Amino acid sequence: MTRTLITNGTVVSATGAIAHDVLVEDEKVVALLAPGTQGITADTTVDATGTYVVPGGIDAHTHMELPFGGTFSSDTFETGTRAAAYGGTTTIIDFAVQTAGNDVRESLDTWYGKAEGECAVDYAFHMIIGGVDDASLKLMGDLVAEGITSFKLFMAYPGVFYSDDGQILRAMQRAAELGALISMHAENGIAIDVLAEQAAARGETAPIHHGITRPARLEGEATHRAIQLALVAGAPVYFVHLSSSEALAEVVRARAEGHNVFAETCPQYLYLTLEDHLGAPGEDGFEGAKYVCSSPLRSKHEHHHRDLWRGLRTNDLAIVATDHCPFCFKDQKELGRDDFRLIPNGIGGVEHRMDLVYQGVVTGELSLARWVETCATTPARMFGMYPKKGVIAPGSDADIVLYDPQARTTISAATHHMAMDYSAYEGFEIAGGVRTVMSRGTVVVDRGQYLGTKGHGRFVPRGLSSYLR
Amino acid sequence: MTRTLITNGTVVSATGAIAHDVLVEDEKVVALLAPGTQGITADTTVDATGTYVVPGGIDAHTHMELPFGGTFSSDTFETGTRAAAYGGTTTIIDFAVQTAGNDVRESLDTWYGKAEGECAVDYAFHMIIGGVDDASLKLMGDLVAEGITSFKLFMAYPGVFYSDDGQILRAMQRAAELGALISMHAENGIAIDVLAEQAAARGETAPIHHGITRPARLEGEATHRAIQLALVAGAPVYFVHLSSSEALAEVVRARAEGHNVFAETCPQYLYLTLEDHLGAPGEDGFEGAKYVCSSPLRSKHEHHHRDLWRGLRTNDLAIVATDHCPFCFKDQKELGRDDFRLIPNGIGGVEHRMDLVYQGVVTGELSLARWVETCATTPARMFGMYPKKGVIAPGSDADIVLYDPQARTTISAATHHMAMDYSAYEGFEIAGGVRTVMSRGTVVVDRGQYLGTKGHGRFVPRGLSSYLR
Amino acid sequence: MTRTLITNGTVVSATGAIAHDVLVEDEKVVALLAPGTQGITADTTVDATGTYVVPGGIDAHTHMELPFGGTFSSDTFETGTRAAAYGGTTTIIDFAVQTAGNDVRESLDTWYGKAEGECAVDYAFHMIIGGVDDASLKLMGDLVAEGITSFKLFMAYPGVFYSDDGQILRAMQRAAELGALISMHAENGIAIDVLAEQAAARGETAPIHHGITRPARLEGEATHRAIQLALVAGAPVYFVHLSSSEALAEVVRARAEGHNVFAETCPQYLYLTLEDHLGAPGEDGFEGAKYVCSSPLRSKHEHHHRDLWRGLRTNDLAIVATDHCPFCFKDQKELGRDDFRLIPNGIGGVEHRMDLVYQGVVTGELSLARWVETCATTPARMFGMYPKKGVIAPGSDADIVLYDPQARTTISAATHHMAMDYSAYEGFEIAGGVRTVMSRGTVVVDRGQYLGTKGHGRFVPRGLSSYLR
Amino acid sequence: MTRTLITNGTVVSATGAIAHDVLVEDEKVVALLAPGTQGITADTTVDATGTYVVPGGIDAHTHMELPFGGTFSSDTFETGTRAAAYGGTTTIIDFAVQTAGNDVRESLDTWYGKAEGECAVDYAFHMIIGGVDDASLKLMGDLVAEGITSFKLFMAYPGVFYSDDGQILRAMQRAAELGALISMHAENGIAIDVLAEQAAARGETAPIHHGITRPARLEGEATHRAIQLALVAGAPVYFVHLSSSEALAEVVRARAEGHNVFAETCPQYLYLTLEDHLGAPGEDGFEGAKYVCSSPLRSKHEHHHRDLWRGLRTNDLAIVATDHCPFCFKDQKELGRDDFRLIPNGIGGVEHRMDLVYQGVVTGELSLARWVETCATTPARMFGMYPKKGVIAPGSDADIVLYDPQARTTISAATHHMAMDYSAYEGFEIAGGVRTVMSRGTVVVDRGQYLGTKGHGRFVPRGLSSYLR
Repeated sequence: MTRTLITNGTVVSATGAIAHDVLVEDEKVVALLAPGTQGITADTTVDATGTYVVPGGIDAHTHMELPFGGTFSSDTFETGTRAAAYGGTTTIIDFAVQTAGNDVRESLDTWYGKAEGECAVDYAFHMIIGGVDDASLKLMGDLVAEGITSFKLFMAYPGVFYSDDGQILRAMQRAAELGALISMHAENGIAIDVLAEQAAARGETAPIHHGITRPARLEGEATHRAIQLALVAGAPVYFVHLSSSEALAEVVRARAEGHNVFAETCPQYLYLTLEDHLGAPGEDGFEGAKYVCSSPLRSKHEHHHRDLWRGLRTNDLAIVATDHCPFCFKDQKELGRDDFRLIPNGIGGVEHRMDLVYQGVVTGELSLARWVETCATTPARMFGMYPKKGVIAPGSDADIVLYDPQARTTISAATHHMAMDYSAYEGFEIAGGVRTVMSRGTVVVDRGQYLGTKGHGRFVPRGLSSYLR
Repeated sequence: MTRTLITNGTVVSATGAIAHDVLVEDEKVVALLAPGTQGITADTTVDATGTYVVPGGIDAHTHMELPFGGTFSSDTFETGTRAAAYGGTTTIIDFAVQTAGNDVRESLDTWYGKAEGECAVDYAFHMIIGGVDDASLKLMGDLVAEGITSFKLFMAYPGVFYSDDGQILRAMQRAAELGALISMHAENGIAIDVLAEQAAARGETAPIHHGITRPARLEGEATHRAIQLALVAGAPVYFVHLSSSEALAEVVRARAEGHNVFAETCPQYLYLTLEDHLGAPGEDGFEGAKYVCSSPLRSKHEHHHRDLWRGLRTNDLAIVATDHCPFCFKDQKELGRDDFRLIPNGIGGVEHRMDLVYQGVVTGELSLARWVETCATTPARMFGMYPKKGVIAPGSDADIVLYDPQARTTISAATHHMAMDYSAYEGFEIAGGVRTVMSRGTVVVDRGQYLGTKGHGRFVPRGLSSYLR
Repeated sequence: MTRTLITNGTVVSATGAIAHDVLVEDEKVVALLAPGTQGITADTTVDATGTYVVPGGIDAHTHMELPFGGTFSSDTFETGTRAAAYGGTTTIIDFAVQTAGNDVRESLDTWYGKAEGECAVDYAFHMIIGGVDDASLKLMGDLVAEGITSFKLFMAYPGVFYSDDGQILRAMQRAAELGALISMHAENGIAIDVLAEQAAARGETAPIHHGITRPARLEGEATHRAIQLALVAGAPVYFVHLSSSEALAEVVRARAEGHNVFAETCPQYLYLTLEDHLGAPGEDGFEGAKYVCSSPLRSKHEHHHRDLWRGLRTNDLAIVATDHCPFCFKDQKELGRDDFRLIPNGIGGVEHRMDLVYQGVVTGELSLARWVETCATTPARMFGMYPKKGVIAPGSDADIVLYDPQARTTISAATHHMAMDYSAYEGFEIAGGVRTVMSRGTVVVDRGQYLGTKGHGRFVPRGLSSYLR
Repeated sequence: MTRTLITNGTVVSATGAIAHDVLVEDEKVVALLAPGTQGITADTTVDATGTYVVPGGIDAHTHMELPFGGTFSSDTFETGTRAAAYGGTTTIIDFAVQTAGNDVRESLDTWYGKAEGECAVDYAFHMIIGGVDDASLKLMGDLVAEGITSFKLFMAYPGVFYSDDGQILRAMQRAAELGALISMHAENGIAIDVLAEQAAARGETAPIHHGITRPARLEGEATHRAIQLALVAGAPVYFVHLSSSEALAEVVRARAEGHNVFAETCPQYLYLTLEDHLGAPGEDGFEGAKYVCSSPLRSKHEHHHRDLWRGLRTNDLAIVATDHCPFCFKDQKELGRDDFRLIPNGIGGVEHRMDLVYQGVVTGELSLARWVETCATTPARMFGMYPKKGVIAPGSDADIVLYDPQARTTISAATHHMAMDYSAYEGFEIAGGVRTVMSRGTVVVDRGQYLGTKGHGRFVPRGLSSYLR
């Protein structure tokens, strides 16, 4: 039995900051103690002076080793979870993928296999159902029983992951039966494909046309549609990577009516813009491909950033995840040099989420408590891991981050730990930084040193969402 | 040259009521004259004392001889337009139908053939594009040139008339180029078919399940979606047979933002309810099939009637048309005795529209001017027939109705003139009634006598909508 | 008996443009005739080739000889109505003023006296009730009987015209009884006076602080409040000089719910901005006083112009009036050189309304029909003068304007006919222009020549609004 | 030093339920411990088996010994806080009252005097500013410094507590400077007084006319107005005793736009209705006076209860307080036997809040976490007492309630502990009940026995709200 005492820090929870000590025994938190409590014996004492002691981050949306467009996302579970650890994220929820015609069971097993023994921090899975049919609907029940309690559908990517409205309705009905959560990629892919084909036919093949052919209205439309289908089915719905004012407005409208509608956004939608696709002066025009992701980045001439920060403040956006789906520029993004439709969709960021959202605290967009809530507590509650994860409390996993508000770092591909040859956030200056990261009681990162081990991370079976009544 | 003078009446236009005389020469109105103007010679003088002199009604939505579900709607152009005349409607806009795989040109010619030489009053055509593809898109231009300036698409009826969102987007783009108008059947047919199949599988086969499996949310959803696609395409959109508060709310929202979004409702949505499907006590339970139409009737326990009347008042609903699509109960509606999905969809009402909407004037829902506007002036302006139709003005077609507010009638299958063996409005008592109907200068109905002739009615080529700028 | 035939023009009504002739006999229109109708004898024939023949404009909001802040608005009924005639406006509705402690009857008689025998064109009166009490409430009934059917209240100007919410409620209840219309100056004057006093105390005395201390939120607030009071009272409400997106949003919201809520805007809110108060480079800083009016001009950095044009298109704004309240710069506006609070509030524009709104037709904001509707037909219907005014129809007053779309003019104090030493629209280039103006059958302006006579204009007693059911 | 260990309970926080032990030392919580942690010595062990261990309730709105309408609310600080303790509420925030013409300092001192040495549990004060002027505005700064950080204004009760919009604006500006919070009684009292006077003049004097003359629209109106004034002032605003769908809708609208707008509701608005004023069959018609409070109860024929529960779920309603303002029926409520305007306004309920809101957990309206949040954690955070109050955490005051979900009680005046001769909730059956209540480490109530002492309760100086950034 090993005991660690974290002293002198300010513990931040979803409701506020309180100075107290935290006692960890093996993998668990066993006590919260008034500062300076006497008579506590510990094998190790961590001095947290000057830092915020926060629950380890939970990134509810990652894609490690994802097959996409003839290539694979560039982070393995090993590299990706290590990068996560560097950034203060101690749990990821990755997406296992079933596509039409394939067996859900086998598909999931493939993902178990990819992750097992590889991860630096804990991991769980959502299941993508790319082929909604009687067989996959039936298996949803088995998956819930083994801790896969959320299922993702796509209104985009016809012929790949796409479900039609009838399939969506059926999957939602099934989720309602099971108490499970449907998460949704909400873009009208049928209409988008027409726009993309028309653009390509006009010779508009540069990366920015990826964004132009995916107008925000078509995210708003799909968001509204999914909400209506969910209400017909009597099911909750969770929107992934919400990127636009239009989509947010639909979520706000539904939530104001009291419906079980939830959404996440990602750092890229808070910081990057459509115009980034134009690249910097002097760059190869194709450099803009680095920013290709879906939902796409939105124009700086509109009010998306402002509205999304507001949504985070009001809880209409519940969670910040990364949709970490890294591709290297060389050989991967370059597949689409002649046609934006061939650029693999995705931006890597699992390492920078805690830092990027913390900047909102610095600028006054969010409170400290809300930073912790959006990055850790709500993901845990939303996805059935609370109070094991997402909170520092007796009995919880000792996933703990010491975050130093005085640190200063600059994001760069030269220094990051993700398997990517560029960073979408290159040169971003960050106020604050992770000092120490503990995963289930083990210090895995300390002052920039990786102290963890491959395989330390375990699969986390999840229960039902705390948000559904 | 024949001259007719209509005297002593109160002429009602879209802006108000004014006592003056109307001089008709052959087929046209040639003068509006102060009451009692001296020195006018006329072959005939019609004394309009005590009546409202209004522009002949325009029913912007009829389906004569429509093939549907293995049968045909029961009114021919001959019987249907005669019934229209009885009810004070002097122009219908019927729907020519192209289905996937068939040629638009040939399809339209079939409809020209059906109508020519048969009609009691004038007629025009919208074109249903059931198969949006390069060929049909191209032909839209030819049709606009010959006076078919509106095109209907379906978001319902997969496998029959259904267009997917990509097809809708392309047709809207094409309409935008041409200045034409897309009209839309907005229900999410993909989701509805799932619900209907599930109901049938549960043995819920009675007529009311037609309505239950087409929830108002799925009309609202499709309405929202069509609006978003229209905005992406830069095109206007016109919703046919809007039936629910939910769909209206979407139209209101778009119109408040200034978009070119328009809608019609129909008398059945103002008077009938989902619960009518239950039939009267003592009736065969299947009598409710008489009320099967799509969009379906809505529940009396909600606020649809109230909201739709309000929409007519506020102009969020611009037009009342009938969606006249009559089927006899015997042999036709009965096709669905074992399965509501086989009941032909449609209610006949072309004869009663002017009377049914006038009841709104009686009850204070609408002003006299608004009655004329929703039933005649706006249809003419919306569909490119103004000022030939929809207004009593020098140069306009002499389509004129003398409406007697003191008349009293009762609607009944026993007395109506439509080729239907029942009436959805059986027993409705009507305050007011048509006294005299003039079509292009010829009295075709007078005090209940049909004085018209088959073939008097002519095809009206239409221009572009007055509402699009 | 004199007969005038207006031929070869295009007559524009609220529903569209139709080529036909108009026959006038003495003061009235007696016939509308198909173009080129033979056998019509007339004393005079006016060739309207190339012009739009439109109903004479109705300016529903003017203040001639208004006592305000120790001075009087600079146009008399004589000069003001002559200027109106030049601009194609053939009826004004001016505001008679009762203030607290004064008798309504006597106050109104004063206004009758000011106008009688002075006017170039017809005039009517609204009554300002500046002192709502038992006596004034009672007299509202007498006024309705003599043709003063609308009553204006102020939520601004405490101590001058201001009514508190209880007085407003009582006046609205009384209006509901009488079928009369309450029109409202909706700005929260109590809060505004605090802001203005604070600004002055900080030494912020320049004209622009007039606008800054009257924020749009406080117009929106008062608009919402008046609507709620009207709904409690069961009364309609009409907002004068609506100037901001915020106020419009409240009107839109109420109208979408079907309430009898109406609004006018004015040309100054469609064209001028808060920043005009800064004056032109090189000008005396106080030149900005020329633009002081209430509601104030709004910032160009917001979206007021766009939203107001949209409101005119959607009919959420029903009417364009001028709130013509002219003051000379010298000696009048100059009263506030040291303190913006002392600048008389008002801008003159009665002469330019038809031209300024017509520019919206030129730029595609409005249809021709909508131009006529907002400037003539709706004012007549709203304020109980239809069909005497606002329409060219048999029996209507022959108030007719021939408007030449090919004309080109430039607005300037050097050439205008209002008793003002400046123009707020100085240098505005106008496409189109009035060619001929007929008031009750008499040509009063032709090709820039004033042919009218003082005293030709008569008082128009008004009936109840056509818009209230 | 005394140590108490609370074991075997389920501790519920604002984010969820976790089984762990709580160690209390003297007045403070000193540790949270994994269940069954060995080696902890304590003087007393409280077995919490089967109970929820929750932070002591905070009632943010009480009126003890309030002078109103010539009488005083019937609970003293002694009786009222004892009743609070019985009901699991360990902190109240009462309202000290300044009225126009009186000194804020002296007024507050009076309230300090009333409470000191009397209270069973802790107490804090809001300050009512009934006379906003230079003097009172200045003193707001002093009060913030001594821990009175929220100030209440009234838009109702003209001549008593009423502030006009200019006063409200000035107080809000001052609050913005200080970081303080304005709380608002939002009803349009000026208009209400007109309606009430008119009703009384018509002889409508029964208690129900209290509610009828305070229509929900006038709460919605005032809510909207206060929000707009707050936005002009750049200040937050908190609405007390929000009672209607209309007012909630305004709060929802503002919050969706991200503004610092907050609201509380009260149990009476979740359970009682306007129709309760009619009394039970066989009762004296005046019994309905028991339900007179302001904001008034709303009609059961509308959707207020449903909407308010939804608002609590969505956090548009942040807090449930009681507005505890008890009056006896005899001699107090009876003052208004001849005129509802003379009935003292108020309902007592400080004892039943935790129970009544818990029923929402039982019926599925709220989660357990949300019960704790609305009743304890949010009040603490909103009013600057977190983490001293509102949370069970090391260093927090040991205000702890053991709540037994298996208990069953019935509310009755015969058994309650408030100084009232009736209960507005007479006969309500409650699932669940308070077992043990600890105030700053002292058990004050256990299994229905009061173990506390007068004067144990201390004044809590408050900091600024956690919700304002």
